[in-house]
Amino acid sequence: MNAEIIAVGSELLLGQIVNSNARFISQQLAGIGINVYFHTVVGDNPDRLRSAIEIAEKRSNLIIFTGGLGPTKDDLTKETIARHIGKKLVMDQEALESIELYFKKGNRVMTENNKKQALVLEGSMILPNHHGMAPGMMVENGNCIYMLLPGPPKEMEPMFLQFGTAALSKQVKEDEKIVSRVLRYFGIGEASLETEIDDLIEQQTNPTIAPLAADGECTLRLTAKHQDIMVANSMIDEIEQKINSRVGQFCYGYDNTSLMAELMKVLNEKQLTVSAAESLTGGLFQQEITSFPGTSSVYKGGVVCYTNEVKKEVLKVKEETIEKYGVVSVECAKELAENVASLVSTDIGISFTGVAGPTELEGKPVGTVFIGISIKGKQTVVHELLLGGTREANRTRSVKYGCYYLIELLQESQKA
Amino acid sequence: MNAEIIAVGSELLLGQIVNSNARFISQQLAGIGINVYFHTVVGDNPDRLRSAIEIAEKRSNLIIFTGGLGPTKDDLTKETIARHIGKKLVMDQEALESIELYFKKGNRVMTENNKKQALVLEGSMILPNHHGMAPGMMVENGNCIYMLLPGPPKEMEPMFLQFGTAALSKQVKEDEKIVSRVLRYFGIGEASLETEIDDLIEQQTNPTIAPLAADGECTLRLTAKHQDIMVANSMIDEIEQKINSRVGQFCYGYDNTSLMAELMKVLNEKQLTVSAAESLTGGLFQQEITSFPGTSSVYKGGVVCYTNEVKKEVLKVKEETIEKYGVVSVECAKELAENVASLVSTDIGISFTGVAGPTELEGKPVGTVFIGISIKGKQTVVHELLLGGTREANRTRSVKYGCYYLIELLQESQKA
Repeated sequence: MNAEIIAVGSELLLGQIVNSNARFISQQLAGIGINVYFHTVVGDNPDRLRSAIEIAEKRSNLIIFTGGLGPTKDDLTKETIARHIGKKLVMDQEALESIELYFKKGNRVMTENNKKQALVLEGSMILPNHHGMAPGMMVENGNCIYMLLPGPPKEMEPMFLQFGTAALSKQVKEDEKIVSRVLRYFGIGEASLETEIDDLIEQQTNPTIAPLAADGECTLRLTAKHQDIMVANSMIDEIEQKINSRVGQFCYGYDNTSLMAELMKVLNEKQLTVSAAESLTGGLFQQEITSFPGTSSVYKGGVVCYTNEVKKEVLKVKEETIEKYGVVSVECAKELAENVASLVSTDIGISFTGVAGPTELEGKPVGTVFIGISIKGKQTVVHELLLGGTREANRTRSVKYGCYYLIELLQESQKA
Repeated sequence: MNAEIIAVGSELLLGQIVNSNARFISQQLAGIGINVYFHTVVGDNPDRLRSAIEIAEKRSNLIIFTGGLGPTKDDLTKETIARHIGKKLVMDQEALESIELYFKKGNRVMTENNKKQALVLEGSMILPNHHGMAPGMMVENGNCIYMLLPGPPKEMEPMFLQFGTAALSKQVKEDEKIVSRVLRYFGIGEASLETEIDDLIEQQTNPTIAPLAADGECTLRLTAKHQDIMVANSMIDEIEQKINSRVGQFCYGYDNTSLMAELMKVLNEKQLTVSAAESLTGGLFQQEITSFPGTSSVYKGGVVCYTNEVKKEVLKVKEETIEKYGVVSVECAKELAENVASLVSTDIGISFTGVAGPTELEGKPVGTVFIGISIKGKQTVVHELLLGGTREANRTRSVKYGCYYLIELLQESQKA
């Protein structure tokens, strides 16, 4: 099965947004063994869309459309496909009810044009939208499968994961299964990681090893092909062992996990509570930890101590500590971690203080960061970092390092 | 002139990277009045690349290629185009010297395959690469202009800005410039917004009006074409006035601004300081406000009061308030806002308490949110919301509503 992804939307052609949907869908299709040979972007124009469909039909037998399913008049993907393949648009009662409910829940009045979103291609399989209004759909015609997905990534991604991949997996011929596993690394650069396992990457054709770096982390995607999924999996196990006998100390998890998710697991296992004092990170650590539902068993709260006054008045950092060492210091990080744990009554206190940028602070260069971790009032460790990124990258990486150090400390204390 | 952007690279089709080059070039082309009607992505495969070129030649008279100019065997953009349009590849002496210098500077030995990068299409105009090795080039053949650019954004972007846009501007007939403006709306749904201005959208061909919804906000993109940029701008002014005479109360800004950026402006103007008490948003408001450099003049800090204990112990919410009304209540939001302002000594305190989901709390449904705003200890208002989204959407929208209400309040107090 050869796929093509057609993104519909003039905002893409004007460069207002990037086509992240094509990337997301391509990744998912690779995972289930479907080749993607072309991406196309076309504007909200029925003639040009129609010509793009005609071209795609000649070279692909799966066409996935994103965008143009909304309520407004320039949303015309469904209408254009319907006319092109000679199918009617019919009202889907379930989708309509779900849209009505969406408005009721939001306490808003539903305008008439919203009903257009519940129109679907006759005979299509519906992909429910649990994060928005317009449903997706899949329909076969001639030699070609057409899948229509909404444009907003927040709606499209969960829909495709929950319903799209399953529907497509059934269509893939039974000859070869593709199994893929992502290994996640932190604390090692992409080039170093690649140098360590260069010979393995060179030798491998099945499984393949594909390195990628993003947001201060590295991943290795291992992909094996075999008729038997069990065999494919054990091929991946084998190469993973070879790789991690060399760089396993940096490997923290698999697939879609994150350092924060791994930290949550350890905290839950050990039934430990944590609080945070955040200066340069400004709430980012706390925002991430509370993004998981049911956090309150391990996370209680904390303080964003952006200014020195808040450090002194709310978190009781000593005047002389700040005068003598500054707020970007081991000593300040230590007091912040200890004092937030005692203020909020938690087992662990973690603190972030440093220079996010763009300008230096207290004569310390941008990227200087101190992370303090206080455990049960007994032990406090402070890590110093010198990061070299933008303000945003320095904040994001500080939080990742915080998670990494805390996981490490809790796992060490287990071994001891 | 109608342009198409063809990105060459299998890593794009595997979803390993996103096609940010197409976005960047599209933005630049819009700025110099060149329409982009299609983006195409094709892998490192000469047959499929050739077929993509043939299709592009039929519908576009400017084709911009990115990628496939490097030293390795799978870099074949130049070779494929040369064969297709019947032009030779010739060694460019300047490019070769620049590549040799590149290796000398880096103290590395130049391998033979690097010379391939200095081969250029006969008769083409060279676009020097000041950030890498492979030069770009532009050549005319038949009715079509072919521009070839390197794939890495760090090389392509400066090359295109310095040499590409100038070369293309000369080609553009002096007939039309494109001017675009984005109006940003909050507190009104996409469908309602469109209903209000439906007749204007219908009537307009120049400027055009294109609605788009994302992350709980709506935008309208106004695009005008005219020989004279001043005239194009005043055409946009005129239609903006018509639109905002109907829905102006929901319009909060232009182009790439955000509600938080607008809030920062107002706070800076009025020299007011703010602190936050965050329960369901868990630090998101504070993380966003501190993402701007130099926030400390208006933002001092705050508390993430995720559990009831922290609300009581750190923020002194009265025991009886929680017992009688619960934490998801007007009363709790009011005390949180007032008490955080007094704890952190700021002019304004803002609080977020509610049910992010996925499960209800205190018998109140998911999406129930109370936002308290206390100003100078004199006035406290509490807004109640009933949002209908996921945990993540409810948190994000709560923060946006918080910014929106606070901006509104500060602007009203000015009028009064």
